[in-house]
Order: sequence, then C-alpha cells, then structure tokens
Amino acid sequence: MITEKVMEEMFKPRQAHWRTSITKVEPNRLTTRGRLQEDLMGNISFSEMVYLLLKGDLPSDNPKKMFEAVLVSFCDHGVTPPSTQAARLMASAGSTVNACLAGGILAFGENHAGAIEKAMKNLQEGVKLAEAYGRSASETARFMVEELKTKDQKVPGFGHRYHTEDPRARKLLKLGKEYGCSGKHVELALEIEEILGREKGIKMNIDGANASILSDLGFNWRFGCGIFAIGRLPGLLAHVNEEMSSEEPFRKITELDTV
Amino acid sequence: MITEKVMEEMFKPRQAHWRTSITKVEPNRLTTRGRLQEDLMGNISFSEMVYLLLKGDLPSDNPKKMFEAVLVSFCDHGVTPPSTQAARLMASAGSTVNACLAGGILAFGENHAGAIEKAMKNLQEGVKLAEAYGRSASETARFMVEELKTKDQKVPGFGHRYHTEDPRARKLLKLGKEYGCSGKHVELALEIEEILGREKGIKMNIDGANASILSDLGFNWRFGCGIFAIGRLPGLLAHVNEEMSSEEPFRKITELDTV
Amino acid sequence: MITEKVMEEMFKPRQAHWRTSITKVEPNRLTTRGRLQEDLMGNISFSEMVYLLLKGDLPSDNPKKMFEAVLVSFCDHGVTPPSTQAARLMASAGSTVNACLAGGILAFGENHAGAIEKAMKNLQEGVKLAEAYGRSASETARFMVEELKTKDQKVPGFGHRYHTEDPRARKLLKLGKEYGCSGKHVELALEIEEILGREKGIKMNIDGANASILSDLGFNWRFGCGIFAIGRLPGLLAHVNEEMSSEEPFRKITELDTV
Amino acid sequence: MITEKVMEEMFKPRQAHWRTSITKVEPNRLTTRGRLQEDLMGNISFSEMVYLLLKGDLPSDNPKKMFEAVLVSFCDHGVTPPSTQAARLMASAGSTVNACLAGGILAFGENHAGAIEKAMKNLQEGVKLAEAYGRSASETARFMVEELKTKDQKVPGFGHRYHTEDPRARKLLKLGKEYGCSGKHVELALEIEEILGREKGIKMNIDGANASILSDLGFNWRFGCGIFAIGRLPGLLAHVNEEMSSEEPFRKITELDTV
Repeated sequence: MITEKVMEEMFKPRQAHWRTSITKVEPNRLTTRGRLQEDLMGNISFSEMVYLLLKGDLPSDNPKKMFEAVLVSFCDHGVTPPSTQAARLMASAGSTVNACLAGGILAFGENHAGAIEKAMKNLQEGVKLAEAYGRSASETARFMVEELKTKDQKVPGFGHRYHTEDPRARKLLKLGKEYGCSGKHVELALEIEEILGREKGIKMNIDGANASILSDLGFNWRFGCGIFAIGRLPGLLAHVNEEMSSEEPFRKITELDTV
Repeated sequence: MITEKVMEEMFKPRQAHWRTSITKVEPNRLTTRGRLQEDLMGNISFSEMVYLLLKGDLPSDNPKKMFEAVLVSFCDHGVTPPSTQAARLMASAGSTVNACLAGGILAFGENHAGAIEKAMKNLQEGVKLAEAYGRSASETARFMVEELKTKDQKVPGFGHRYHTEDPRARKLLKLGKEYGCSGKHVELALEIEEILGREKGIKMNIDGANASILSDLGFNWRFGCGIFAIGRLPGLLAHVNEEMSSEEPFRKITELDTV
Repeated sequence: MITEKVMEEMFKPRQAHWRTSITKVEPNRLTTRGRLQEDLMGNISFSEMVYLLLKGDLPSDNPKKMFEAVLVSFCDHGVTPPSTQAARLMASAGSTVNACLAGGILAFGENHAGAIEKAMKNLQEGVKLAEAYGRSASETARFMVEELKTKDQKVPGFGHRYHTEDPRARKLLKLGKEYGCSGKHVELALEIEEILGREKGIKMNIDGANASILSDLGFNWRFGCGIFAIGRLPGLLAHVNEEMSSEEPFRKITELDTV
Repeated sequence: MITEKVMEEMFKPRQAHWRTSITKVEPNRLTTRGRLQEDLMGNISFSEMVYLLLKGDLPSDNPKKMFEAVLVSFCDHGVTPPSTQAARLMASAGSTVNACLAGGILAFGENHAGAIEKAMKNLQEGVKLAEAYGRSASETARFMVEELKTKDQKVPGFGHRYHTEDPRARKLLKLGKEYGCSGKHVELALEIEEILGREKGIKMNIDGANASILSDLGFNWRFGCGIFAIGRLPGLLAHVNEEMSSEEPFRKITELDTV
C-alpha cells in the first residue's frame, strides 16, 4: 500500500550522490586521476592531460606522440563541414560563443563525425572476430567487406569526396609505424584498404586512419566522436571568431528584422 | 579555522531543494498552476496551456485569441532564417531530431530572434518613461528614435530585408484592434512607425508587431525569445523532417568520409 | 583525370538549392502549405498550425481536438525530469534563454523522451505485422510482449516510476474514445496493457497513450520526440524563467568564481 | 519599383561566398594558416595547433609552455560545476555523446565560464586606461575596485566558494613568472588582489589568473569562454563516459516511462 511514508520515500530528492573517480575536490586541493593538478600544470602537455582524463593514466612516450598527432590531425577542414557552417551561421545570427560551439558539435551527426565511431566499432569487432576464429587480417578484411556489401552498406573510414588520397591519413599511418603504435587494427584497416583500392579505387581517409590508430592505442569506440570533438573544437572557435570579427552580421541571411 | 566539520559542510550536496510553483507532482496526481492536468486536457487549447504555464493563470477570451494569433504568426519563414538552415544542416549530417531542434534554437541570436526581445524591452521602457514624465506616445516615440539615432543604433522591430510591408505585422495589428488587445505599447509602436515611415520609408515588421502586442498582453520582455521559440519550433521540426525524408544525406556537404 | 576543371567542379559551392514545400517566401507574401499566413492568423489555433506544418493539411474537427489534448498532456512534470533540471542548471549558471531551452531539449535522450518514439515504432510495426499475418490485436500483443521478454527488453510506454496509474494516460485514452480517434494502435496498446497488468501489475503511461493516439492520428514514429519537444518547450520556458527570477544564481552550485 | 528582376535578386541564394583565412582546402592538400597539415602533424603539439588556429601563428617557446599550462589548468573540477552536472544528466537520460558535450558547453553561462571573459575584459580595459592616463598599476587597481564597488558589482576573477587559496591560480602565476609571460595584466591583477586581500580576505582564483595570463599572451577577451571550453571539453567527455559506463541510466531521475 502506498502510505504517506512510501510516498515520501518515492519523492525525496535522489541527487545526493554524484560519484566520480575523475577529480577529487577538497578545499585548496584538486586531485585528478590521483595527481595534484598543480603538479600536472607545467609538467605535462595538454594532450597528455586529455589522455589522462580519458584513460586514467599518463601515456608513455610513443603513445603520447601518436595521440598528439591524432588531435592535431582533426584541426580543421575549412568551411566545408556542416558543423563549421552551422557554427558560423549561429555566429552570424549573433549567438554567444558557447552557443555557436555547442551548435557546431551538434552537427557531428551520423554522417559527419559519426564515421570515426563507426569505423572504430567496425575495426574493434573485426579484430575480436579474427582472434576468436583464428583468422588472418586479410581473411577478416575480405569477410568484413563482403558482409557490408551484402547489407548494401559502405565501409566506414574509406574514400573522401574531396581527396583521392587524404594527406592526413597517409601521414597518420606513417607516424603510427614510426612510433610503433600500429597494431592489429591498423593492419586490418590496411587490408581493407587493399581490397577497396582494387575493387573501387578508393583509399583510407582520415577517419579510417584515426579509427585504427585510436583503437591500437586502446580507446574504446565509444570515445570516437568525443575525441574528434576535442580535436575540432579549436577550429570551430577560430571560425566563430572569424565570422564575428570579419563578416557582416547576417551576411548571407534573410530575415533581417531591424532597420 | 577550516575544521573537518566545516569542510564537510562546504562539500555536502546542495541539491536537496528544487522548488517550483509550476507543477506539483504527487503519485497519480499532477497539478499545474493549481489545476489538475487531467482536467485541463480536453478542456483548454495548447496555446491556453502555454499562457497558463508562463503567466500562472488562464487568459480570458480576447487575450486567448490574440495569443493564439501571435503563436501562429511565428510559424515559419521558409529556408531563409539561419536557425532553419542550421537545423537542416544538422539533419543532413545525420544528427538526431532533438539535436537538430536544439541547434535551430541556438541560432536565435541577437540578430535573429533577439530582435523581438530588444523591441519588447525598448517599448516597455518607453511606456514607463512616458508615464513617469507624463509624455504623450508621440513625444516618447520621437525621443526614442532620436536617442537611438544618437547612439547610431537601429530601432528594433522595424524594416525587413524581404518585405516592404510585412503581411504578418499588418494582420497582427488588425487583430489587436479587433480583439481589444492593443494598448499603450501598440500605440507607441505605431507612433514610431509613423516617424520611421516618414524618415526612412520603412514599416513595422513581425517582431515589432508581436513585441508591442505581447507587451500589451502583459508579458515581460524576458519572455520574448522563448515565446518566439515556442512558436517557431513546429516549423523547425517540419524542416528537419523534410530534410531527413526528402533530401540526400550530406547533399550540400563536403567532408564525406564513407565510401 | 582530375583537371583544373574537375577540381573547380568539386569545390564549387553546392548550396544553391534549399528546396522546401513548407513555406513559399515572396516579397510581402508568405504561403505555408498553400495557405497565406495572414489568412491563417486569427482563423486557426496554434495546435492546428502545428498539425498543418507537420502533416501538410489542417485536421478535421475530432483529430484537431485530440491533437490539442496530446500537446496539452506533455506540458510539465515539475522539477523531476532531467531535461528540466538541465535547463534550470543552465539558467542558474547565467546562460541565455535560448541556450537553456536548447539544453533542455538535448536531455530528451533515449531513456527520457525517447520512450514515445520507441513506443510509436513498436506499435506501428505491431499493427503492420498484425495486418500482414491476419493476426488479432490480442495475438499480436502476446507475440510482441514475448519477443521483447526474450530479448530482455522492456515494453516502451508502460509503467511509471511515480505513478501506479498515470492520470494523463487515462484521460488521453478516454478522450480518444470520445473523439473517435482510437484505432488499431490504441487497440493494440490496450491489449498489451492487459497482459502487463496481469503479469506485472503495471499500466500504460503517458508515452504509451500518446504513442498509440499519435499513431492512430497518422503520425510517423519519427515525429515522436519532436512533438514531445513542442509540447514540453513551454514548460521548460516556465522553469527557466522561474529559475532566473526566483532563485539565486548558482544557488546549488559550487565553482563560484567571483567575489 | 519591385520588378520581377528585383524580386529575383532579393531572393536568389546568397551563400556562394564562405570566405576563410583559416584553412585552404584543395584536392589532396590542406593548408592551415599557411602550413600544410601533414607537415604540422608529428611536428607540433596539440596546444600549439590551438594557438596557431586562434592567433594565426605558432607560439615561441615560452608562450608555448605557458599556453600549455593554461589549457591543462582548465581540465576538471569534479562533479561540482553546473556544466558537468548538465552533461551527466543528459548522459543519464540516454542522449548521444555529442549532445551531452554540447549541453555541457551550453551551461558555460555568465556566472560560470563567463567569469574568465569578464575578467579579461576588465583587465584589458584597465591596462588601456592605465596607459591612456599614465597611471600606475596600483592606482588603476584602486580605481577599478572602487568603481565596481560603486556599481555594487563584484570584481571578476577573485574569490572562490571552495578554495580560500586556489592552488591552480598560485601555480599559474608562478609559471607566468618562470616563463617570462607575466606582463601588465598580471601586474594589474596582483595589485587588485592586494586590495581585495586587505579589504575582504580573498585571493585571485583560476579565472583571474588565466584571464591575466591570456591577456598578457595577447588574446582578446572575446576568446575567453572559447579557450575555457577547449580546456574543459576533455573533462566533460570523461564525465559523460563515466556516467554512461558506471552509473545506471536515469539513476537520479524520476520520469521513468518504461517498465
């Protein structure tokens, strides 16, 4: 029976407990992933901090360099992406900087930044599959391409509307080799690239390269879109600022409602 | 001294109290502004519900009709506004429906939906000024236009990039008269229109008309952008759905990252 | 070969064509779904305008009343939903009204407003299934409940944390009958309710009731979250305004960075 | 007269020209701020890339180290900020990762991340004032504190709800000295701190320290909120991921609409 007491229980605030293992906040003392923030400042780079926050520990030297390059690679693609266009439209409409940045991030939909997450998931499932069945990367690649073909789906991370050979993808793969950060996911991605190159004349794009390298760095695919957002946010801010400072308000727009 | 006890006090959760006078939630019983929701359903219109939520009470007959027309007037302006373009870009990028709607609302910046709020603020200050100084609407209008001219600012709510005579503004003012909902704010807006018509050949736009009518209905200017958002959201949803169902993904876009 | 000409073609702006069948914008003339906006203002209610925008035509009398009640039913659930809490947190942090509203809408995730869309999809697939196999509503309901049980998934639209009998659901179903707007989807939902009532002692909630009624009104499930957003936005605005006007800034918050 | 031709002109698409000086996009070639992206990858750090995007050129050695520490300092403040709470609420409601991140950024309102922008503006105006009137930093500080007192406003960037001595602020100021990056803005901030310490017993907080250092690095105050967003986004992502992977859905919430 719902007594007065039961009711009270049901309706009492449930928000007492916000747990987190990320940062401990005490008076005059902030500890992130077990390290004092004041000791981290001046001693680690920003990308190391990103790595620490997301993975719980600092990277060793080579993964550190690799992750740095990954974040750099996401920087900007001019005014072509919908996220950049959306953020600039909002800036042009007079929205606040944080609204414009949020708006840009909201355009990272399934067809835009979604590709990196899909590619990571795909490769991570592929590597698990290969291990479970004792298949080679080449066999797994063939199997995966065939399976997506049957479902009439494209292989995420390959081909680019603008670039026949994405310069960022090449460089990332080269650095992966140089830093010893290429593992089974990169191997699988390269096998898929060979098949798609032969069959369709297309190559790995930046999403495919980053997806395979981030997977080899041990990032779960669920981080894909978020890491892309971290890497792209500075570019969005540069565009928002450029729109605000160099273009007329409402330059391309229509519903101007003031004299 | 910061003892252990003080520290605990400082860091204890502060979220116990979410107060609200809008809706009381009890088991099997929801009471909004003092009325059972189940009694409101089937008995009042959606726009009456909006009015009840925002003002705390139901409108009488004429304000009800007037507010209905205000909400209808905000419906849609085709693909021209930045908010609509931003929402469609996000839909095209494959974002979820609620992300697209949020994105559209984020483009209601100072230059876009901001005009209605600025116009409301302007008119509400004007009417207060007129009362404080015993000035006529015509004197106040002249004073306000001059003051904005001195500051090199435009008068919000007048002129339109597309329409020399905004058909929505005319109709709103006509309905305001018909429903007896035009008061001092409309009077002031009409005086400003006369001056600007003479001096610059421009007329009141939809923002000016709605700003003056909403002010006469007793809405504080801080509600301006929000009421516009309520009126425009259905149009944004229609556009998002049209984009998703009638256009190719990434139709106008660039950074295609899949085969 | 990629000649200069091909390159130009690839990089030329692709934005010339924003097509829409929603509103035609001409100078001093705005036509929405084939009707002059100035003729709609003063003649149709806001909920009719929503219906017109989303479905392309005006509703007849009973669907009009039904849709009105649906929108009213979504109005507010106090401070309990995450969307309301998120919007109020933003208001408390000093964000602009449109940022707060957008933030509230962004909290309509899979577990929150997502239920209505899932329930609509579920019921619409169920009715199609029933028709395809010539099964009765009762058989289909049993099949659907079993299938979800097998997958260890809950049936969307049934049960409520706070209400053993959701007063809004009861009223909606009653109005559906009264207005003659209950069809095959409501029938199926009621059959599911009977099974779940017997097996688990739970009843249809507001999402289930609205999902079945909106489906019987002919709305595709993809509109579910969007229609909920339209119905809930006024409540969010009321909360944002209450937070801004009645509560201290940062009332429950912590990182206060000013003296 | 509005002829058919004028009409066409008014309504023709205005979107042909998206100019940008940030990144040039050509087939297989991406040039950001005059540098090939493939040459930047592997050669500069992520924070250098941020600097390049925002300022147009790479930092020399000391500003580079300083900017790195600034970005690191923004990392995270546990579950206390409204932005983190909003993002976690959205994650708990089942929103997508990018919606949660956008939601967190939308909570960077005037009272939250707004402080850094206000502090930058304040200090930059102060330094200009000092130069214009030939006043010392100490005189300017006294003038500014008095002026804000008269307006009954707080001095942005000083005092903290949790910390009597913000460990991040101390460390930033120490690094600023060490790297030779402390200039007139830091000097002015320290003078203000002396007055407020004497009068109210409060110290500079992280916003004040970063505001003065970013100003001495030559960043316009309009970048304040955006740079904070860049520094805080990784922390938000860590929280969103923690909420999604370690907490029950809707753990603290109420309107559960499924069985």
